[in-house]
Amino acid sequence: MNLPSFADVEDAARKLQGVAVRTPLLRSDALDAAAGGKVFVKAECLQRTGSFKIRGAYNRLVRLTEAERPRGVVAFSSGNHAQGVAASAQMLGVPAVIVMPSDAPRMKVEATRGYGAEIVLYDRFTQSREAIAARIGQERAAVVVPSYDDFDVMAGQGTVGLEAAAQLEEAGARANVLICPASGGGLMAGIGLVFEALSPETRLYTAEPAGYDDHRRSLEAGRRIALEPAGPSLCDALLAPQPGELTFAVNGPRLAGGYAVTDEEALSAMAFAFRHLKIVLEPGGAAALAAVLSGRAELEGRTAVVIASGGNVDAEVYARAIG
Amino acid sequence: MNLPSFADVEDAARKLQGVAVRTPLLRSDALDAAAGGKVFVKAECLQRTGSFKIRGAYNRLVRLTEAERPRGVVAFSSGNHAQGVAASAQMLGVPAVIVMPSDAPRMKVEATRGYGAEIVLYDRFTQSREAIAARIGQERAAVVVPSYDDFDVMAGQGTVGLEAAAQLEEAGARANVLICPASGGGLMAGIGLVFEALSPETRLYTAEPAGYDDHRRSLEAGRRIALEPAGPSLCDALLAPQPGELTFAVNGPRLAGGYAVTDEEALSAMAFAFRHLKIVLEPGGAAALAAVLSGRAELEGRTAVVIASGGNVDAEVYARAIG
Repeated sequence: MNLPSFADVEDAARKLQGVAVRTPLLRSDALDAAAGGKVFVKAECLQRTGSFKIRGAYNRLVRLTEAERPRGVVAFSSGNHAQGVAASAQMLGVPAVIVMPSDAPRMKVEATRGYGAEIVLYDRFTQSREAIAARIGQERAAVVVPSYDDFDVMAGQGTVGLEAAAQLEEAGARANVLICPASGGGLMAGIGLVFEALSPETRLYTAEPAGYDDHRRSLEAGRRIALEPAGPSLCDALLAPQPGELTFAVNGPRLAGGYAVTDEEALSAMAFAFRHLKIVLEPGGAAALAAVLSGRAELEGRTAVVIASGGNVDAEVYARAIG
Repeated sequence: MNLPSFADVEDAARKLQGVAVRTPLLRSDALDAAAGGKVFVKAECLQRTGSFKIRGAYNRLVRLTEAERPRGVVAFSSGNHAQGVAASAQMLGVPAVIVMPSDAPRMKVEATRGYGAEIVLYDRFTQSREAIAARIGQERAAVVVPSYDDFDVMAGQGTVGLEAAAQLEEAGARANVLICPASGGGLMAGIGLVFEALSPETRLYTAEPAGYDDHRRSLEAGRRIALEPAGPSLCDALLAPQPGELTFAVNGPRLAGGYAVTDEEALSAMAFAFRHLKIVLEPGGAAALAAVLSGRAELEGRTAVVIASGGNVDAEVYARAIG
């Protein structure tokens, strides 16, 4: 298995210079008081396209060969990876087809179309997005860009960790704990490579929606576990039923565990971020913050980094969260 | 008249090290497209206390004498200066009394109380906040901390400009235009001192609510004009009827003009920031962005900095903005 290393994350950071935003590491007195510790929030909602996904997508697309570029790329995603791929493709002049579920948040579909990508909608309950993407990939000889289980995608997402580690140092802090939302685990894997190298004492945890806490259970079992389909969740970005093969090869040996949060806890964390941090988070993007505010992560007297991974949320859901 | 200089802003920046956050200078493809130019947004909503006001307040309070500190401070404010003074007082161990209108946004009252300040509510329509603050100041021999017409407050707010100028340089950009929300004009004055020194070609504009556009009219007239009381406005942070005496002595010779925006334009700018920037803005904090998005500021082919001055807004108003 060809897995990225810390050096590959550093290389991705060079490619992303001038493309990805160095998002701020926020803190707030109210958050520290609520956690009983010191909590830093890496605000990837302020990233270009509203989530961290552009880091991995661009790092993959920038490495397309001259022959591959005109044939374009195809990706499937409920919306954040979709926007990351579409925006990267637009910057690089590469055609992009994005396969999205017909019930994806409207904002995500519109934004993806806004980056000039061709959208193919599918029914999540009757159609296979993998099959649709594979067919399009074959028909057009386009490169399929996975949303997490990919060497360059993982390395690109890891640049979140590079920045966070540097920002912690600038703040004169060392993190005891880092909590990161996980769907397929690509962001967590990239960050894991970085923290192993730069801050090996930091204990790493995933945060997932209840019923989709495949990382938590896989980490407990010591092997990848695929969950039965669960009920609906507001955390549309975090619905993978199983850790990725490559991502879990990275995450398995490096993580301390995982947290599962309810939709209500995610909404409540969004409201906290509205009130105290003044950042817009989507439910999945608030999962790690929810693990802290729900008290599931015990941070008394400790220093933690929480990844706030995205902010692409429809107004109705947001109004419900803050109301 | 004793007015601050660029050096006083630099001195304030030293005092604010480790106290104020270096807020990010954001940009977005959607915003550039909407403006037809290049627009940077200085996100002071991400500042400690949710607005820039802590900069000026702390820079004033840190200069209290040993004799003044135990007697404390008194301030009046609809909420952002209130929080800035209260949080600064808490950090410095100084007692604070804040006089607030009984119809101030609940979030602002609660947050101010949360910083340990004593709150005195008054009726905006029948009572004089100046008289109440003066009486409390006399009774307790407390120092009154003005929200804008003060040497150290202006110098402190100017650190927003110092950061923005440095961040523009890091981005390899020069600004043709800077637009800043104005109530009494303290933030604009501090920034004006900085941009005169570091970027004299940048044309400076205020943004105010329609009916409270005393800077726009005063700049046109070349002297301070006091407006008749106007109807209600959602921009609770920007309701001063007249530029400050000291602030206008700074602003008058340095500004190119002012924009007036409607409540609907401010709400619409808040929704744009929700959708594309993922920051939470209050109506007054969105006034400069509204001047851009409404087309009042003509930015075709130009580079602009917009100050997003605060994000302390009640959920009901926010839900209305994004709905």
